[in-house]
Amino acid sequence: MLTEKDIIFFTNLLGEDFCTKPHYLYAYSYDSTRLNFLPEAVIFPRDEIEISKIMSYCNQHNIAIIPRGAGSGMSGGSLAFKGGIILALEKYFNKILEIDSKNMLACVQPGVRNQELQNALNKVNLFYPPDPASMEFSTIGGNVAENAGGMKAAKYGTTKDYVLALRAVLPNGEIIRVGKKTIKDVAGYNLAGILIASEGTLGVITEITLKVLPKPKYSCALIASFANFKDAMNAVYESMSSGVIPVAMEFLDYLTLQAVKIKIKNDNELISFFNANALLICELDSMDKNSLNMQIKTLESIFKNNASLQTKISDTRQEFDLIWNIRRNASQAITCYGIKKLNEDITVPRSNLQTLLDGIYKIGQKYNFEIPCFGHAGDGNVHVNVMLKNNDQQTLERGYSAVKEIFELTIKLEGTLSGEHGIGISKAEFMPLAFSKAELDLMRSIKKAFDPNNILNPNKMGL
Amino acid sequence: MLTEKDIIFFTNLLGEDFCTKPHYLYAYSYDSTRLNFLPEAVIFPRDEIEISKIMSYCNQHNIAIIPRGAGSGMSGGSLAFKGGIILALEKYFNKILEIDSKNMLACVQPGVRNQELQNALNKVNLFYPPDPASMEFSTIGGNVAENAGGMKAAKYGTTKDYVLALRAVLPNGEIIRVGKKTIKDVAGYNLAGILIASEGTLGVITEITLKVLPKPKYSCALIASFANFKDAMNAVYESMSSGVIPVAMEFLDYLTLQAVKIKIKNDNELISFFNANALLICELDSMDKNSLNMQIKTLESIFKNNASLQTKISDTRQEFDLIWNIRRNASQAITCYGIKKLNEDITVPRSNLQTLLDGIYKIGQKYNFEIPCFGHAGDGNVHVNVMLKNNDQQTLERGYSAVKEIFELTIKLEGTLSGEHGIGISKAEFMPLAFSKAELDLMRSIKKAFDPNNILNPNKMGL
Repeated sequence: MLTEKDIIFFTNLLGEDFCTKPHYLYAYSYDSTRLNFLPEAVIFPRDEIEISKIMSYCNQHNIAIIPRGAGSGMSGGSLAFKGGIILALEKYFNKILEIDSKNMLACVQPGVRNQELQNALNKVNLFYPPDPASMEFSTIGGNVAENAGGMKAAKYGTTKDYVLALRAVLPNGEIIRVGKKTIKDVAGYNLAGILIASEGTLGVITEITLKVLPKPKYSCALIASFANFKDAMNAVYESMSSGVIPVAMEFLDYLTLQAVKIKIKNDNELISFFNANALLICELDSMDKNSLNMQIKTLESIFKNNASLQTKISDTRQEFDLIWNIRRNASQAITCYGIKKLNEDITVPRSNLQTLLDGIYKIGQKYNFEIPCFGHAGDGNVHVNVMLKNNDQQTLERGYSAVKEIFELTIKLEGTLSGEHGIGISKAEFMPLAFSKAELDLMRSIKKAFDPNNILNPNKMGL
Repeated sequence: MLTEKDIIFFTNLLGEDFCTKPHYLYAYSYDSTRLNFLPEAVIFPRDEIEISKIMSYCNQHNIAIIPRGAGSGMSGGSLAFKGGIILALEKYFNKILEIDSKNMLACVQPGVRNQELQNALNKVNLFYPPDPASMEFSTIGGNVAENAGGMKAAKYGTTKDYVLALRAVLPNGEIIRVGKKTIKDVAGYNLAGILIASEGTLGVITEITLKVLPKPKYSCALIASFANFKDAMNAVYESMSSGVIPVAMEFLDYLTLQAVKIKIKNDNELISFFNANALLICELDSMDKNSLNMQIKTLESIFKNNASLQTKISDTRQEFDLIWNIRRNASQAITCYGIKKLNEDITVPRSNLQTLLDGIYKIGQKYNFEIPCFGHAGDGNVHVNVMLKNNDQQTLERGYSAVKEIFELTIKLEGTLSGEHGIGISKAEFMPLAFSKAELDLMRSIKKAFDPNNILNPNKMGL
């Protein structure tokens, strides 16, 4: 609990930007997990110096600080799990500071939304590849804290592949600059590397320098249907090693496909693609038309060699959208299988995707749940959806048991608990499945090196 | 000094692979810096379990352990600076464990030479982009420890962009696996990220999983001459933002160009390119011929728009080599300016290259040294060569003063002390130029988190 002395400190420093009114506390009490924890206060620091003063004070007085961007996280990383103050960055740290085409980089404050940056870059023919599904509202700061991925990861990688430099405030109040505006930098430890994906537990990021790329001039969509998932995956492997790396390479399994079929109805001109057991939906891009055509030709030939039933390439923007709408409808469509969805973002090496799905369906049979799966075939990232027909405690508990078995299988198949969403609160209990005691101890030592008093986003990530 | 008890422990564990004979100690006392420190022993562990036992013992008995690959480092990272035992990995940790084209990765032991891996990948049409100049003899383990770069960094990035997972032995003897065989992984801290570039100070890396790429099918070389460096750099900026990113984009400054001209003599058919003040030498690659031609066309037009004096594209392998030999001759040719070379691998954002070079030449005038510069225009990495006409103490000291001023200028221009070689011993004293006390303290805390007794490659990196 904040003392009177604490309240005086924060009020003097922040005035109206120190908020304890109930509606503020409530507004900052949740994220995309739908978990809910009331913080003791919400603060909106105006600059790095204020953050430094806040951290320094909280460090001395053992007050928990939880940094927060848009609060769109999927694992509870920005929630005041066990009390503390929400340090909200969206109000004053929302500026694009620089777009520098000579060095091909953008420098932004953490509260800039991913889409805002995309729009600004688009104007000068540049682009920033990481495109989490939340990109319209999630912030770059949050993207860095969770190492956000997205559709384009198989070709373009994830957030960590684009962060060149960071400014951050440490729990002791010190301001550090880590990394450089250069591709090459091997002076000292890779501190930027460890801040990325640290879920706001090691430092408050105040400035982010990102590598950006020239915007590809041409793109198209491809859809292909297969009689079985194995053929589809063989097409994926062959494509990835051919040199034609699709920007996105998404799959829909049989259950998802059936659900989408019902949703889009018979009048959709792609309806014949649904007489299949697996779909691949791809996007290709290129700087020149010839090269795009070459990619299309190669991919069509690979699909054909791997027994595709039907393929179609988009010629117009309308066709592009028609194809991609199938993928976009997946998440909504599968609600036909149940009223509650337990969805996880596990990832395995793509060569293990088939074994993973087979195992997941077996777990589904065991617990009597439908578990439609779709996701990124290119990078092995699967959206697993355990569909519950009821919302009662017993069904929920069976659902969680199924999820736990899915995690165990994932780890057995050299996979990871999370490809995109992070650990936060919601996957914390599973960390010992994925890491040895020595590995967890090492993570705890690193947390301690940054934050000896455990005031910054404490009790997260199972550490 | 090793005690009799220590010697019994190591002899029992390692037999003949525990070496204290003088010729062994001497053979493992130097690296590419030409610095020289005799270790107390050299050991060749056979497997991870042995390394674990060794670390555990050394941790209990405060014995320094220095991991070593090929010993080809440029900053003294693998030297027994203040005594200790060299743990040499080249004898038993030299196997390529797996090349997996389904997941597009290679798994290797740390003692595998970069070129060996390239050769093995080449056979299955894959490639691993990081190509340090030392690639024929340097090991992947050393490349990871120093985050090696190379010619191809501007397009393909550095070692850190390719490391997916590591196995390592911690100073306390615990074996950890960090990272995954997947593009996406956000479970726990990015421990692989902090081990990369840690110069063997945090853990002994025992296995490395690397992302690999399909091998481009077509490539060519381009050479272009310019009346001044500014025009050349404008061509570089425009190229990088056009979407045509050359694999390599090297520059030679006026002094280097004059030196190479003398070396290659008048009968070289490219001699007319030397009537210039700056040269750019590029390599382009592509999966298809059309796209390569498109790149060539775009680049030629960009060069022309930026007042290139002359350009030539290689049509044959012979022409490719003729063009690249100019760049390859640079290092040797500049020895015409002095009998001793102080060379550094500083890097600045490429937009600051011009200002950096202007400043370096001024420092040259001040100290009366010729300082030819060449390097990677694409990524701002400059090989600066302070050429000394004498080898006496006074000249050397003046040389080091010039180098120090060059470092100060580099940091002022938002650059880094090292783009490729690391800090090790040779740049340790300059760390406070580049980092604040808070930043260095944080690095020391991280070192302590991994290695509380400071037994693993101690006294390096200025920490």
